[in-house]
Amino acid sequence: MLAELIMVGTELLLGDVVDTNSAYMAQRLAELGVDLYYVTRVGDNRERIAQLVQQAHQRADLVITAGGLGPTADDLTKEAVADAFGKELELCTEALAAIEQRFRRLQTSMSENNKRQAYLPAGAQALPNPKGTAPGVLLELDEGKAVIMLPGVPVELKAIMDESVVPYIKQRLGENGIGIIYSRVLRFYGLGESSLDSMIQDIIAVQTNPTIAPYAGSGEVRLRLTAKAANETEAARLIKPVEEQLLARLGSYFYGYGDEGMEMVVARLLLSQGRTIALAESCTGGLISHKLTSVPGSSGYYIQGAVTYSNTAKESVLGVDPELLSQFGAVSEQVAQAMAIGVREWAGTDIGLSVTGIAGPGGGTETKPVGLVYFGLSHADGAETHRRQFAGDRLQVKERAALAALDILRQHLRK
Amino acid sequence: MLAELIMVGTELLLGDVVDTNSAYMAQRLAELGVDLYYVTRVGDNRERIAQLVQQAHQRADLVITAGGLGPTADDLTKEAVADAFGKELELCTEALAAIEQRFRRLQTSMSENNKRQAYLPAGAQALPNPKGTAPGVLLELDEGKAVIMLPGVPVELKAIMDESVVPYIKQRLGENGIGIIYSRVLRFYGLGESSLDSMIQDIIAVQTNPTIAPYAGSGEVRLRLTAKAANETEAARLIKPVEEQLLARLGSYFYGYGDEGMEMVVARLLLSQGRTIALAESCTGGLISHKLTSVPGSSGYYIQGAVTYSNTAKESVLGVDPELLSQFGAVSEQVAQAMAIGVREWAGTDIGLSVTGIAGPGGGTETKPVGLVYFGLSHADGAETHRRQFAGDRLQVKERAALAALDILRQHLRK
Repeated sequence: MLAELIMVGTELLLGDVVDTNSAYMAQRLAELGVDLYYVTRVGDNRERIAQLVQQAHQRADLVITAGGLGPTADDLTKEAVADAFGKELELCTEALAAIEQRFRRLQTSMSENNKRQAYLPAGAQALPNPKGTAPGVLLELDEGKAVIMLPGVPVELKAIMDESVVPYIKQRLGENGIGIIYSRVLRFYGLGESSLDSMIQDIIAVQTNPTIAPYAGSGEVRLRLTAKAANETEAARLIKPVEEQLLARLGSYFYGYGDEGMEMVVARLLLSQGRTIALAESCTGGLISHKLTSVPGSSGYYIQGAVTYSNTAKESVLGVDPELLSQFGAVSEQVAQAMAIGVREWAGTDIGLSVTGIAGPGGGTETKPVGLVYFGLSHADGAETHRRQFAGDRLQVKERAALAALDILRQHLRK
Repeated sequence: MLAELIMVGTELLLGDVVDTNSAYMAQRLAELGVDLYYVTRVGDNRERIAQLVQQAHQRADLVITAGGLGPTADDLTKEAVADAFGKELELCTEALAAIEQRFRRLQTSMSENNKRQAYLPAGAQALPNPKGTAPGVLLELDEGKAVIMLPGVPVELKAIMDESVVPYIKQRLGENGIGIIYSRVLRFYGLGESSLDSMIQDIIAVQTNPTIAPYAGSGEVRLRLTAKAANETEAARLIKPVEEQLLARLGSYFYGYGDEGMEMVVARLLLSQGRTIALAESCTGGLISHKLTSVPGSSGYYIQGAVTYSNTAKESVLGVDPELLSQFGAVSEQVAQAMAIGVREWAGTDIGLSVTGIAGPGGGTETKPVGLVYFGLSHADGAETHRRQFAGDRLQVKERAALAALDILRQHLRK
């Protein structure tokens, strides 16, 4: 089945609103194995919407519109769809009853223009909206094709998508005897998209089911393995050997699956090992602590942290020897190590992790350029340091250094 | 001028990535007074991209694509654009030199497929990419029309948009004898979009040049004042009285202009007053320190901070009386105040700022629900505390609490 999305609303063309609806709809469709070739955004213009609906209807089996079902005069999606198929709008008494009931329940009075929301293109049926007044609309057409109209308010769109649209598509797919699509995402840190791509180009080239698609995330690379099969068990069976083949080659860069970010992987390892941690941050300025405390239950491993921005703070809080600071500078292997050891003692934790570097834009020199960062890790068996050079502006250097610090920690916890 | 956007990338059709690029591009175009009727998203498919580019080129003066300029085999935008206009790709030696230079500077080796990024459709010119390897591409066509290709990585797209595309459009608009569009954004904290809207509805209703458009940001509201005029001086003259009228009514919520975020306003105030600060964070877990140290030059005011997550840390680092913790609990006015006083003494700074609250999802009670946050501020004249209740998930509570803390600090610094 091939679908197409049309996102309606002039506000989407002014850039004041980021469209999150289409990502939600696209995800649901991908899970169902429905293909999607185009998503188009258009303003509240009756003629342009009608033209787009016609074009999409020719190209796809299922057209879903979002937005333009509200009560005001610039909500024109139903009118445009009716135009596209030469139909009139007709009052749907069930839809009207549902709207009236909603106003009674909320004990507010219904304004005259809410009645507009009960008019549907002739032959269409209303899809109940449990979160708002505008019903969704399903218009079935010739050759098994259909147009579905959803309201643009995200919570309403999601509710109708989950409760009416997904079941409708499943039923249609069952009728057509098509199976499901199942996908799994592998996440990698420490190599770029083009390096990863060239390392597994031969595997990607011969692979058809599952397919393998690399894409770049923020400071990481992901591989999506997508299988078409009769059911999930069968799909998982198809994915398993390919995943094993990929991990045999890329295993040292692999860190997690799906939605599980680096900080969640690290949190899971710390919790399962019952280990505690303290942070000493200079150039990252609290960002690593923020990431580690953004995982629910973080008080189980995160005890305390220090943002020691000034040299004085490094001395007084972490007990860094002033000699080290003057001899090697704050951004050095020696100071990173002393910070890690110092913060572990200060907090009495199992692990001490430190970061010191030059985030820029100022402060760089020939030998210590902007983006140079040292990391220290102190634990029961001793201490280690790492050196990295990052590109980017101040915020990017902070983000990249934070991710690198978490990966250093992850590598240690996996030993 | 009429523009059209084409967002390229299969990941955009799978719902894995929310497209924020098009909102950014749409905003820049709106500021320039360029109309936008359609934004289309399409997968990494050479034929479909080429067809869309042809269709958009017929409908609009300027077509801008985003994505598909990467080094891998599924990056096909330049090939598709070349197909659309019957052109070949040719090596651009300046683009190649820029890519090679970037790899030398980062001291990493350039992989063979990065060379692909230096090939452009015949007759096109490269637009420098200060943040990555893929140059933007400008292809000027007949009848004063053009196609611009940008990389999909947001930071790269923004840089080329700001440094090359916006100046190009301005120049083209100037050539065509159309005036300019000039806009100014006012930022407000502490009231919702609908409250703000109703407070100034009468001003918005009668205002035509400049127009006034409110929109909701993350935890704040912005007003965009947009004037059409012959030049910037004239536009600024039109905006001034309207801005004054708005600030007379909304002044207590106003905090800054344009791209200047709350942390930048606070940083500017601290630097100009020569004051230093120390942070004691519990539920925000380092996020406020991260924000305050993300402003270049932050070592001028930010001395040190503590993320005191455990009660022990609050006692040992900040000297909070264990009696207070057991009598009132860690999330209380009393502990917030003790943390602020403690961190100011610990760091020897002019100001101490503290946050303690319940970020959730666990840990809430009937009297202290999730989202309850106390703030403490200690300075030479004494100490004060504030109480706020936030809605949202763990990350939203952290973000909202961090913004509130910065606003409390800003209000104090403005006294």
